[in-house]
Amino acid sequence: MALILYELAGKDDYRFSPYCWRTIQALLHKGLTFERRSMKFTDRACIEPSGQERVPVLVDGERWIADSWDIAAYLDQAYGDRPALFEGDAARAEARFINSWADNSLHPAFTGAIVHDVWQHTHPDDRDWFKTSREERLGRSLEAVRDDQDAGMAAVDRVLTPLRTTLQHQDYLSGGAPAYADYILLGSFMWPRSCSPKRLIAEDDPIYPWRERMLDLFEGFCRNAPGYPV
Amino acid sequence: MALILYELAGKDDYRFSPYCWRTIQALLHKGLTFERRSMKFTDRACIEPSGQERVPVLVDGERWIADSWDIAAYLDQAYGDRPALFEGDAARAEARFINSWADNSLHPAFTGAIVHDVWQHTHPDDRDWFKTSREERLGRSLEAVRDDQDAGMAAVDRVLTPLRTTLQHQDYLSGGAPAYADYILLGSFMWPRSCSPKRLIAEDDPIYPWRERMLDLFEGFCRNAPGYPV
Repeated sequence: MALILYELAGKDDYRFSPYCWRTIQALLHKGLTFERRSMKFTDRACIEPSGQERVPVLVDGERWIADSWDIAAYLDQAYGDRPALFEGDAARAEARFINSWADNSLHPAFTGAIVHDVWQHTHPDDRDWFKTSREERLGRSLEAVRDDQDAGMAAVDRVLTPLRTTLQHQDYLSGGAPAYADYILLGSFMWPRSCSPKRLIAEDDPIYPWRERMLDLFEGFCRNAPGYPV
Repeated sequence: MALILYELAGKDDYRFSPYCWRTIQALLHKGLTFERRSMKFTDRACIEPSGQERVPVLVDGERWIADSWDIAAYLDQAYGDRPALFEGDAARAEARFINSWADNSLHPAFTGAIVHDVWQHTHPDDRDWFKTSREERLGRSLEAVRDDQDAGMAAVDRVLTPLRTTLQHQDYLSGGAPAYADYILLGSFMWPRSCSPKRLIAEDDPIYPWRERMLDLFEGFCRNAPGYPV
Protein backbone atom coordinates (compact mmCIF):
# COMPACT_ATOMS: atom_id res chain seq x y z
CA MET A 1 0.00 0.00 0.00
CA ALA A 2 1.32 3.41 -0.95
CA LEU A 3 2.19 5.89 1.77
CA ILE A 4 -0.10 8.89 2.17
CA LEU A 5 1.33 12.36 2.74
CA TYR A 6 -0.92 15.12 4.01
CA GLU A 7 0.46 18.51 3.09
CA LEU A 8 -0.56 22.14 2.99
CA ALA A 9 -1.90 23.56 -0.25
CA GLY A 10 -2.55 27.17 -1.15
CA LYS A 11 -4.55 28.64 -4.00
CA ASP A 12 -4.04 27.18 -7.49
CA ASP A 13 -2.18 24.24 -5.96
CA TYR A 14 0.81 26.30 -4.77
CA ARG A 15 2.55 24.25 -2.08
CA PHE A 16 4.67 26.54 0.05
CA SER A 17 5.16 24.68 3.35
CA PRO A 18 8.93 24.19 3.88
CA TYR A 19 8.20 21.38 6.32
CA CYS A 20 6.18 19.43 3.77
CA TRP A 21 8.94 19.88 1.19
CA ARG A 22 11.42 18.30 3.60
CA THR A 23 9.24 15.19 3.78
CA ILE A 24 8.57 15.06 0.04
CA GLN A 25 12.31 15.02 -0.69
CA ALA A 26 12.93 12.45 2.05
CA LEU A 27 10.35 10.13 0.47
CA LEU A 28 11.87 10.64 -2.98
CA HIS A 29 15.37 9.97 -1.60
CA LYS A 30 14.16 6.66 -0.17
CA GLY A 31 12.49 5.83 -3.48
CA LEU A 32 9.11 5.37 -1.82
CA THR A 33 5.79 5.78 -3.59
CA PHE A 34 3.38 8.17 -1.93
CA GLU A 35 0.02 9.77 -2.51
CA ARG A 36 -0.21 13.49 -1.83
CA ARG A 37 -3.35 14.76 -0.12
CA SER A 38 -3.86 18.45 0.49
CA MET A 39 -5.03 20.26 3.60
CA LYS A 40 -6.08 23.83 4.32
CA PHE A 41 -5.04 25.82 7.39
CA THR A 42 -8.70 26.20 8.30
CA ASP A 43 -9.77 22.58 7.85
CA ARG A 44 -7.47 20.10 9.54
CA ALA A 45 -10.00 17.34 10.17
CA CYS A 46 -8.17 15.01 7.76
CA ILE A 47 -5.12 14.77 10.05
CA GLU A 48 -7.02 14.38 13.31
CA PRO A 49 -5.96 10.71 13.72
CA SER A 50 -2.35 11.95 13.99
CA GLY A 51 -3.20 13.55 17.31
CA GLN A 52 -1.92 16.97 16.36
CA GLU A 53 -2.65 19.88 14.08
CA ARG A 54 0.28 20.40 11.76
CA VAL A 55 1.40 18.99 8.47
CA PRO A 56 3.30 17.13 7.16
CA VAL A 57 1.62 13.99 8.38
CA LEU A 58 2.62 10.65 6.92
CA VAL A 59 0.36 7.62 7.01
CA ASP A 60 2.07 4.25 6.66
CA GLY A 61 -0.56 1.54 6.92
CA GLU A 62 -2.00 1.81 10.43
CA ARG A 63 0.66 4.24 11.55
CA TRP A 64 0.31 8.04 11.55
CA ILE A 65 3.54 10.02 11.94
CA ALA A 66 3.58 13.80 12.36
CA ASP A 67 6.46 16.35 12.31
CA SER A 68 8.97 16.40 9.46
CA TRP A 69 11.89 15.55 11.75
CA ASP A 70 10.16 12.55 13.27
CA ILE A 71 9.08 11.40 9.82
CA ALA A 72 12.69 11.47 8.57
CA ALA A 73 13.88 9.45 11.56
CA TYR A 74 10.98 7.02 11.07
CA LEU A 75 11.77 6.52 7.38
CA ASP A 76 15.41 5.64 8.03
CA GLN A 77 14.35 3.18 10.72
CA ALA A 78 11.39 1.59 8.91
CA TYR A 79 13.08 1.48 5.50
CA GLY A 80 16.68 0.78 6.47
CA ASP A 81 17.25 -1.20 3.28
CA ARG A 82 16.79 1.94 1.17
CA PRO A 83 19.19 4.91 0.76
CA ALA A 84 19.88 6.49 4.15
CA LEU A 85 18.80 10.02 4.98
CA PHE A 86 21.47 10.14 7.68
CA GLU A 87 24.99 8.71 7.46
CA GLY A 88 24.91 7.79 11.15
CA ASP A 89 24.10 9.01 14.65
CA ALA A 90 26.43 12.03 14.55
CA ALA A 91 25.24 13.17 11.13
CA ARG A 92 21.63 12.92 12.34
CA ALA A 93 22.43 14.83 15.53
CA GLU A 94 24.18 17.61 13.63
CA ALA A 95 21.35 17.72 11.09
CA ARG A 96 19.00 18.47 13.96
CA PHE A 97 20.96 21.67 14.58
CA ILE A 98 20.62 22.59 10.90
CA ASN A 99 16.89 21.81 11.17
CA SER A 100 16.58 24.06 14.19
CA TRP A 101 18.61 26.82 12.53
CA ALA A 102 16.24 26.72 9.54
CA ASP A 103 13.16 26.87 11.80
CA ASN A 104 14.40 29.50 14.24
CA SER A 105 16.81 31.74 12.32
CA LEU A 106 16.23 31.34 8.58
CA HIS A 107 12.43 31.14 8.55
CA PRO A 108 11.87 34.29 10.62
CA ALA A 109 14.12 36.12 8.14
CA PHE A 110 12.20 34.70 5.18
CA THR A 111 8.96 35.74 6.88
CA GLY A 112 10.17 39.34 7.00
CA ALA A 113 10.90 39.24 3.28
CA ILE A 114 7.94 37.32 1.86
CA VAL A 115 5.05 36.93 4.30
CA HIS A 116 2.88 39.29 2.27
CA ASP A 117 3.55 37.16 -0.82
CA VAL A 118 2.70 34.01 1.14
CA TRP A 119 -0.62 35.55 2.07
CA GLN A 120 -1.34 36.28 -1.59
CA HIS A 121 -0.92 32.57 -2.31
CA THR A 122 -2.96 31.10 0.51
CA HIS A 123 -6.13 29.21 -0.29
CA PRO A 124 -9.16 31.56 -0.55
CA ASP A 125 -10.68 29.86 2.51
CA ASP A 126 -7.47 30.50 4.49
CA ARG A 127 -6.85 34.17 3.65
CA ASP A 128 -8.54 35.79 6.61
CA TRP A 129 -7.24 33.25 9.12
CA PHE A 130 -3.69 33.58 7.81
CA LYS A 131 -3.67 37.38 7.89
CA THR A 132 -5.09 37.59 11.39
CA SER A 133 -2.87 34.88 12.89
CA ARG A 134 0.33 36.18 11.28
CA GLU A 135 -0.31 39.80 12.15
CA GLU A 136 -0.88 38.78 15.75
CA ARG A 137 2.37 36.82 15.76
CA LEU A 138 4.38 39.56 14.03
CA GLY A 139 2.86 42.45 15.93
CA ARG A 140 2.23 44.46 12.77
CA SER A 141 0.21 44.35 9.57
CA LEU A 142 1.35 42.28 6.59
CA GLU A 143 1.32 45.51 4.59
CA ALA A 144 3.74 47.09 7.09
CA VAL A 145 6.05 44.09 6.75
CA ARG A 146 5.86 44.36 2.96
CA ASP A 147 6.64 48.06 3.05
CA ASP A 148 9.74 47.30 5.15
CA GLN A 149 10.99 44.73 2.67
CA ASP A 150 14.45 46.25 2.20
CA ALA A 151 15.15 45.46 5.84
CA GLY A 152 13.64 42.00 5.34
CA MET A 153 15.87 41.26 2.35
CA ALA A 154 18.96 42.50 4.22
CA ALA A 155 18.12 40.21 7.13
CA VAL A 156 17.85 37.23 4.75
CA ASP A 157 21.21 38.07 3.22
CA ARG A 158 22.83 38.31 6.65
CA VAL A 159 21.34 35.15 8.13
CA LEU A 160 22.40 33.08 5.10
CA THR A 161 26.13 33.74 5.69
CA PRO A 162 26.85 30.37 7.34
CA LEU A 163 25.20 28.49 4.48
CA ARG A 164 26.96 30.63 1.88
CA THR A 165 30.43 30.13 3.35
CA THR A 166 29.86 26.40 3.82
CA LEU A 167 28.87 25.94 0.18
CA GLN A 168 32.09 27.65 -0.90
CA HIS A 169 33.84 24.48 0.22
CA GLN A 170 31.53 21.60 -0.64
CA ASP A 171 28.79 20.71 -3.10
CA TYR A 172 26.18 19.78 -0.51
CA LEU A 173 25.48 20.41 3.15
CA SER A 174 25.93 16.67 3.56
CA GLY A 175 29.25 16.63 1.68
CA GLY A 176 29.67 14.99 -1.71
CA ALA A 177 26.07 13.87 -2.14
CA PRO A 178 22.73 15.26 -0.95
CA ALA A 179 21.06 13.89 2.17
CA TYR A 180 18.54 15.07 4.73
CA ALA A 181 20.46 18.21 5.79
CA ASP A 182 20.16 19.39 2.18
CA TYR A 183 16.47 18.52 2.02
CA ILE A 184 15.85 20.60 5.13
CA LEU A 185 17.32 23.69 3.51
CA LEU A 186 15.94 23.18 0.02
CA GLY A 187 12.61 22.82 1.80
CA SER A 188 13.20 26.29 3.22
CA PHE A 189 13.96 27.69 -0.24
CA MET A 190 10.89 25.99 -1.75
CA TRP A 191 8.82 28.24 0.48
CA PRO A 192 9.72 31.55 -1.23
CA ARG A 193 10.01 29.76 -4.58
CA SER A 194 6.42 28.59 -4.29
CA CYS A 195 4.91 31.98 -3.57
CA SER A 196 7.22 34.93 -4.18
CA PRO A 197 8.70 36.56 -7.27
CA LYS A 198 11.46 38.12 -5.13
CA ARG A 199 15.02 37.17 -5.99
CA LEU A 200 16.56 36.21 -2.64
CA ILE A 201 19.80 34.72 -4.02
CA ALA A 202 22.08 36.32 -6.61
CA GLU A 203 23.52 34.13 -9.36
CA ASP A 204 27.09 34.64 -8.09
CA ASP A 205 26.11 33.44 -4.60
CA PRO A 206 27.51 29.96 -3.78
CA ILE A 207 24.01 29.08 -2.61
CA TYR A 208 22.68 29.52 -6.16
CA PRO A 209 24.37 26.55 -7.88
CA TRP A 210 23.62 24.35 -4.86
CA ARG A 211 19.93 25.23 -5.16
CA GLU A 212 20.08 24.51 -8.89
CA ARG A 213 21.59 21.07 -8.23
CA MET A 214 18.95 20.37 -5.62
CA LEU A 215 16.11 21.42 -7.93
CA ASP A 216 17.42 18.98 -10.53
CA LEU A 217 17.22 15.97 -8.21
CA PHE A 218 14.50 13.33 -8.63
CA GLU A 219 13.98 14.25 -12.27
CA GLY A 220 13.37 17.87 -11.36
CA PHE A 221 10.52 17.12 -8.97
CA CYS A 222 11.00 20.32 -6.95
CA ARG A 223 11.87 22.43 -10.00
CA ASN A 224 8.61 21.44 -11.68
CA ALA A 225 6.40 22.45 -8.76
CA PRO A 226 4.20 25.50 -9.35
CA GLY A 227 6.13 28.61 -8.34
CA TYR A 228 8.54 31.35 -9.37
CA PRO A 229 11.83 30.23 -10.93
CA VAL A 230 14.05 32.92 -9.38
CA MET B 1 58.25 14.30 19.18
CA ALA B 2 55.40 16.21 20.81
CA LEU B 3 53.19 18.41 18.69
CA ILE B 4 53.52 22.16 19.15
CA LEU B 5 50.45 24.40 19.31
CA TYR B 6 50.82 28.13 18.89
CA GLU B 7 47.93 29.96 20.47
CA LEU B 8 46.91 33.43 21.50
CA ALA B 9 47.54 34.56 25.08
CA GLY B 10 46.25 37.65 26.85
CA LYS B 11 47.36 39.22 30.09
CA ASP B 12 47.93 36.93 33.07
CA ASP B 13 47.76 33.90 30.77
CA TYR B 14 44.07 34.32 29.91
CA ARG B 15 43.49 32.35 26.70
CA PHE B 16 40.36 33.61 25.02
CA SER B 17 40.70 32.61 21.36
CA PRO B 18 37.72 30.36 20.47
CA TYR B 19 39.65 29.01 17.49
CA CYS B 20 42.56 27.88 19.64
CA TRP B 21 40.15 26.19 22.08
CA ARG B 22 38.73 24.18 19.19
CA THR B 23 42.18 22.80 18.43
CA ILE B 24 43.07 22.17 22.07
CA GLN B 25 39.97 20.01 22.53
CA ALA B 26 40.61 18.22 19.23
CA LEU B 27 44.11 17.30 20.38
CA LEU B 28 42.79 16.11 23.76
CA HIS B 29 40.07 14.06 22.01
CA LYS B 30 42.75 12.32 19.94
CA GLY B 31 44.83 11.73 23.07
CA LEU B 32 47.82 13.52 21.56
CA THR B 33 50.53 15.19 23.60
CA PHE B 34 51.23 18.79 22.71
CA GLU B 35 53.29 21.72 23.88
CA ARG B 36 51.45 25.05 24.12
CA ARG B 37 53.34 28.14 22.98
CA SER B 38 51.82 31.57 23.29
CA MET B 39 51.65 34.39 20.77
CA LYS B 40 50.62 38.02 20.98
CA PHE B 41 48.48 39.83 18.40
CA THR B 42 51.34 42.28 17.84
CA ASP B 43 54.18 39.77 17.51
CA ARG B 44 53.40 36.93 15.13
CA ALA B 45 56.96 36.13 14.06
CA CYS B 46 56.80 32.72 15.72
CA ILE B 47 54.17 31.46 13.25
CA GLU B 48 55.77 32.89 10.11
CA PRO B 49 56.76 29.43 8.79
CA SER B 50 53.03 28.61 8.57
CA GLY B 51 52.71 31.14 5.78
CA GLN B 52 49.86 33.05 7.42
CA GLU B 53 49.13 35.28 10.35
CA ARG B 54 46.53 33.64 12.53
CA VAL B 55 46.53 31.10 15.33
CA PRO B 56 45.98 28.31 16.01
CA VAL B 57 48.98 26.90 14.20
CA LEU B 58 49.98 23.29 14.78
CA VAL B 59 53.50 22.01 14.15
CA ASP B 60 53.81 18.28 13.58
CA GLY B 61 57.47 17.54 12.86
CA GLU B 62 58.30 19.32 9.62
CA ARG B 63 54.70 20.15 8.91
CA TRP B 64 53.00 23.45 9.82
CA ILE B 65 49.19 23.47 9.69
CA ALA B 66 47.14 26.63 10.17
CA ASP B 67 43.38 27.19 10.63
CA SER B 68 41.41 25.26 13.23
CA TRP B 69 39.21 23.58 10.61
CA ASP B 70 42.15 22.38 8.55
CA ILE B 71 43.90 21.19 11.70
CA ALA B 72 40.88 19.07 12.69
CA ALA B 73 40.73 17.50 9.23
CA TYR B 74 44.51 16.90 9.34
CA LEU B 75 44.34 15.22 12.74
CA ASP B 76 41.67 12.72 11.65
CA GLN B 77 43.70 11.92 8.54
CA ALA B 78 47.16 11.74 10.13
CA TYR B 79 46.00 9.97 13.28
CA GLY B 80 43.27 7.72 11.94
CA ASP B 81 44.02 5.05 14.54
CA ARG B 82 42.90 7.38 17.34
CA PRO B 83 39.33 8.45 18.27
CA ALA B 84 37.70 10.17 15.29
CA LEU B 85 36.70 13.83 15.41
CA PHE B 86 34.18 13.15 12.63
CA GLU B 87 31.96 10.08 12.27
CA GLY B 88 32.28 10.24 8.48
CA ASP B 89 32.08 12.50 5.43
CA ALA B 90 28.53 13.71 6.08
CA ALA B 91 29.18 14.48 9.74
CA ARG B 92 32.28 16.44 8.74
CA ALA B 93 30.39 18.33 6.04
CA GLU B 94 27.57 19.25 8.43
CA ALA B 95 30.08 20.24 11.11
CA ARG B 96 31.48 22.76 8.66
CA PHE B 97 28.10 24.49 8.67
CA ILE B 98 28.16 24.58 12.47
CA ASN B 99 31.72 25.95 12.29
CA SER B 100 30.60 28.66 9.91
CA TRP B 101 27.55 29.47 12.03
CA ALA B 102 29.81 29.94 15.05
CA ASP B 103 32.20 32.19 13.11
CA ASN B 104 29.61 34.26 11.27
CA SER B 105 26.51 34.37 13.49
CA LEU B 106 27.44 33.49 17.06
CA HIS B 107 30.78 35.32 17.31
CA PRO B 108 29.48 38.67 16.07
CA ALA B 109 26.76 38.42 18.76
CA PHE B 110 29.34 37.57 21.43
CA THR B 111 31.44 40.50 20.25
CA GLY B 112 28.52 42.85 20.88
CA ALA B 113 28.19 41.52 24.42
CA ILE B 114 31.81 41.16 25.56
CA VAL B 115 34.30 42.95 23.29
CA HIS B 116 35.06 45.53 25.97
CA ASP B 117 35.79 42.70 28.41
CA VAL B 118 38.05 41.03 25.84
CA TRP B 119 39.99 44.23 25.51
CA GLN B 120 40.46 44.36 29.30
CA HIS B 121 42.11 40.93 29.10
CA THR B 122 44.42 41.47 26.15
CA HIS B 123 48.15 41.38 26.71
CA PRO B 124 49.51 44.83 27.71
CA ASP B 125 51.49 44.95 24.46
CA ASP B 126 48.30 44.27 22.44
CA ARG B 127 45.91 46.73 24.11
CA ASP B 128 46.30 49.65 21.72
CA TRP B 129 46.36 47.49 18.61
CA PHE B 130 43.26 45.57 19.70
CA LYS B 131 41.25 48.70 20.51
CA THR B 132 42.11 50.45 17.25
CA SER B 133 41.54 47.42 15.02
CA ARG B 134 38.24 46.40 16.67
CA GLU B 135 36.83 49.92 16.70
CA GLU B 136 37.62 50.22 13.03
CA ARG B 137 35.88 46.91 12.33
CA LEU B 138 32.85 47.70 14.51
CA GLY B 139 32.50 51.31 13.44
CA ARG B 140 32.19 52.55 17.02
CA SER B 141 34.19 52.77 20.23
CA LEU B 142 34.50 49.78 22.57
CA GLU B 143 32.96 51.97 25.26
CA ALA B 144 29.94 52.61 23.05
CA VAL B 145 29.53 48.84 22.52
CA ARG B 146 29.81 48.27 26.27
CA ASP B 147 27.19 50.91 27.00
CA ASP B 148 24.83 49.15 24.58
CA GLN B 149 25.28 45.80 26.28
CA ASP B 150 21.58 45.13 26.87
CA ALA B 151 21.16 44.97 23.09
CA GLY B 152 24.29 42.83 22.88
CA MET B 153 23.00 40.35 25.45
CA ALA B 154 19.59 40.19 23.73
CA ALA B 155 21.31 39.42 20.42
CA VAL B 156 23.25 36.57 22.05
CA ASP B 157 20.06 35.14 23.51
CA ARG B 158 18.33 35.29 20.13
CA VAL B 159 21.17 33.83 18.05
CA LEU B 160 21.53 30.88 20.43
CA THR B 161 18.00 29.60 19.77
CA PRO B 162 19.03 26.84 17.31
CA LEU B 163 21.61 25.50 19.78
CA ARG B 164 19.16 25.72 22.68
CA THR B 165 16.40 23.84 20.90
CA THR B 166 18.81 21.18 19.61
CA LEU B 167 20.12 20.47 23.10
CA GLN B 168 16.57 19.94 24.34
CA HIS B 169 16.66 16.68 22.38
CA GLN B 170 20.19 15.33 22.69
CA ASP B 171 23.16 15.46 25.06
CA TYR B 172 25.70 16.68 22.50
CA LEU B 173 25.71 18.42 19.15
CA SER B 174 27.27 15.21 17.84
CA GLY B 175 24.59 13.00 19.44
CA GLY B 176 25.32 10.63 22.31
CA ALA B 177 28.99 11.52 22.71
CA PRO B 178 31.02 14.68 22.12
CA ALA B 179 32.95 15.16 18.89
CA TYR B 180 34.28 18.06 16.86
CA ALA B 181 30.94 19.86 16.42
CA ASP B 182 30.82 20.15 20.22
CA TYR B 183 34.42 21.34 20.41
CA ILE B 184 33.63 24.09 17.93
CA LEU B 185 30.88 25.46 20.12
CA LEU B 186 32.55 24.94 23.48
CA GLY B 187 35.45 26.83 21.90
CA SER B 188 33.03 29.69 21.30
CA PHE B 189 31.88 29.63 24.93
CA MET B 190 35.49 29.48 26.21
CA TRP B 191 35.91 32.93 24.70
CA PRO B 192 33.54 34.77 27.09
CA ARG B 193 34.43 32.38 29.90
CA SER B 194 38.09 33.37 29.59
CA CYS B 195 37.55 37.11 29.79
CA SER B 196 34.09 38.17 30.92
CA PRO B 197 32.17 38.00 34.19
CA LYS B 198 28.88 38.33 32.29
CA ARG B 199 26.39 35.47 32.65
CA LEU B 200 25.37 34.67 29.07
CA ILE B 201 23.48 31.44 29.84
CA ALA B 202 20.89 30.95 32.57
CA GLU B 203 21.00 27.75 34.63
CA ASP B 204 17.65 26.60 33.28
CA ASP B 205 18.85 26.94 29.67
CA PRO B 206 19.43 23.55 27.97
CA ILE B 207 22.80 24.94 26.87
CA TYR B 208 23.92 25.17 30.50
CA PRO B 209 24.15 21.43 31.36
CA TRP B 210 25.76 20.74 27.97
CA ARG B 211 28.44 23.34 28.72
CA GLU B 212 28.94 21.79 32.15
CA ARG B 213 29.41 18.34 30.61
CA MET B 214 31.86 19.77 28.09
CA LEU B 215 33.87 21.57 30.77
CA ASP B 216 34.21 18.26 32.64
CA LEU B 217 35.80 16.45 29.70
CA PHE B 218 39.51 15.62 29.66
CA GLU B 219 39.73 15.78 33.46
CA GLY B 220 38.29 19.28 33.46
CA PHE B 221 40.94 20.73 31.16
CA CYS B 222 38.71 23.57 29.93
CA ARG B 223 37.07 24.13 33.32
CA ASN B 224 40.47 24.63 34.93
CA ALA B 225 41.63 27.29 32.48
CA PRO B 226 41.93 30.82 33.92
CA GLY B 227 38.60 32.58 33.55
CA TYR B 228 35.19 33.31 35.01
CA PRO B 229 33.06 30.32 36.05
CA VAL B 230 29.68 31.74 35.01
